[in-house]
Amino acid sequence: MGKKCIGIDVGGTSVKIGLFEIDGTLVDKWEVKTRKEEQGKYILEDVAASIKERLADKGIELSEIAGAGIGVPGPIMPDGYVEVCVNLGWRDKNPVKELHALLGVPVRAGNDANVAALGEMWQGGGKGYTDIVMVTLGTGVGGGVIIDEKIIAGKHGLGGEIGHIHIRDEETEHCNCGGVGCVEQIASATGIAREARRKMAASDKPSALREFGEHVTAKNVLDAAKAGDELAVDVMEVVGHYLGLALSQLALTVDPEIFVIGGGVSKAGQFLIDVIDKHYDKYMVISKNRPIIGLATLGNDAGIYGAARLILD
Amino acid sequence: MGKKCIGIDVGGTSVKIGLFEIDGTLVDKWEVKTRKEEQGKYILEDVAASIKERLADKGIELSEIAGAGIGVPGPIMPDGYVEVCVNLGWRDKNPVKELHALLGVPVRAGNDANVAALGEMWQGGGKGYTDIVMVTLGTGVGGGVIIDEKIIAGKHGLGGEIGHIHIRDEETEHCNCGGVGCVEQIASATGIAREARRKMAASDKPSALREFGEHVTAKNVLDAAKAGDELAVDVMEVVGHYLGLALSQLALTVDPEIFVIGGGVSKAGQFLIDVIDKHYDKYMVISKNRPIIGLATLGNDAGIYGAARLILD
Repeated sequence: MGKKCIGIDVGGTSVKIGLFEIDGTLVDKWEVKTRKEEQGKYILEDVAASIKERLADKGIELSEIAGAGIGVPGPIMPDGYVEVCVNLGWRDKNPVKELHALLGVPVRAGNDANVAALGEMWQGGGKGYTDIVMVTLGTGVGGGVIIDEKIIAGKHGLGGEIGHIHIRDEETEHCNCGGVGCVEQIASATGIAREARRKMAASDKPSALREFGEHVTAKNVLDAAKAGDELAVDVMEVVGHYLGLALSQLALTVDPEIFVIGGGVSKAGQFLIDVIDKHYDKYMVISKNRPIIGLATLGNDAGIYGAARLILD
Repeated sequence: MGKKCIGIDVGGTSVKIGLFEIDGTLVDKWEVKTRKEEQGKYILEDVAASIKERLADKGIELSEIAGAGIGVPGPIMPDGYVEVCVNLGWRDKNPVKELHALLGVPVRAGNDANVAALGEMWQGGGKGYTDIVMVTLGTGVGGGVIIDEKIIAGKHGLGGEIGHIHIRDEETEHCNCGGVGCVEQIASATGIAREARRKMAASDKPSALREFGEHVTAKNVLDAAKAGDELAVDVMEVVGHYLGLALSQLALTVDPEIFVIGGGVSKAGQFLIDVIDKHYDKYMVISKNRPIIGLATLGNDAGIYGAARLILD
């Protein structure tokens, strides 16, 4: 086995690439544009060319590379087969085989949310643990379940699809997934903003959020809640309630050591954790000895870390 | 490795013991009484003596035994340590070490609900699958999560504690665990009977269940529902709703191949599965490609099968 590995996080706009020592040290990272034309047929060629060029610049031989891992924004089978990946235009494709043919090193792949969870376990908020569940609160809500240092991808690619767990019975609008009352509808950045709009419309309570009107963002809500704004606090109580409930359900299913909360919303830091924890506690009466809740630390780099980690199994 | 293995399922009243070929064929099974006096100190001695006697009767040497697995009705650490097991009187004990000393063969242990799930995976309703979640609907509701043929026991012994997932917000009574609105309060045999009493009290709707009054059982409810009794059907719709919802949450977390429904309530057979499936479908809009729902087949023997299977890892 070589001494370095490569992590590739394929997104709809750009592909992030990281070069790592196998001990988890990030040596270099860079990005290439995601060329989506012609069903995304150039994406892997661009990635491979960019990697070869960068390694050549550094005087590193491909023989020193233990392998490359790749995170894909959609369902991917254990053998690397992708039936369809809407964000990239991919259809009926095997990026593992293709990238292996292009680079000549071992290649492994996983779904991007699951891979990010693996990255946080390796070098982020879950470092030192073997069993973590990551919940990413971004534009949507993603998740990844890692048990014994391995991703639970599920037998139909539904493992860790925490954002689409039904949690709120009284919801009436539909989620992007077609369901109603998903975690994502409440706890994503868009969900938090929507909840704030609803609360503003439902009362005349004065609030710093009213100046933003329809354009209120999750960041506005979190900033105002931290400053004690009552309406914003009410919004975050709703978010904390449903997230706390969802985490309790996860705790009583796979019981990890830690929940790692990431994504843009998690920039609110310990304030967010405390709101979630208060409600989580309510639903975990069964035991004081239980998973803890912490923050992700790798930000947008979680994907390249996790992709590189795929190679080390 | 020998050619046979032993599965031991320790219950509060009796200990079930099974002798298996390592291919899963049950060669013999028997029971010994659970002597709970003096903090259950005789239980393992009785078990070991009974096993040695039975093997001697059959002319089988201990050297032909690959090992013995044991299912314990309470939390047990990966190394076999039991802090406390209320049902047996055990406290600060390591049944793995003790039984190994008594028998001289490898011993492994697990929580009884998890071990039963492993048994159903090996030779029961989950045979042929590697990833199953078992839900046992008995006096309480137990569960076990098996991924890649291994039990997910959890880092605090909470893995598969499906019965204590909070599922019903409008519940007001407390569960045995101290929580409120647990799956067990609705979907256990006692929960189903309670739901029937509530529905009888809440309306004057005529029903075959009224002749049983306060003594109505889950079996009465299921029999009446199968016969089309409207009030009984209403009860089972509530049960199906919450079980379907719970299974959808499990599907979007660990995504097994199959949910295996066991316990006394599951004697209602396909009728029960259909009621659950109808509601499960509602919460799985995200994908038609999803875990299926089936019935357990080993009944009370699931524990000895699973305990024996522990040895074959």
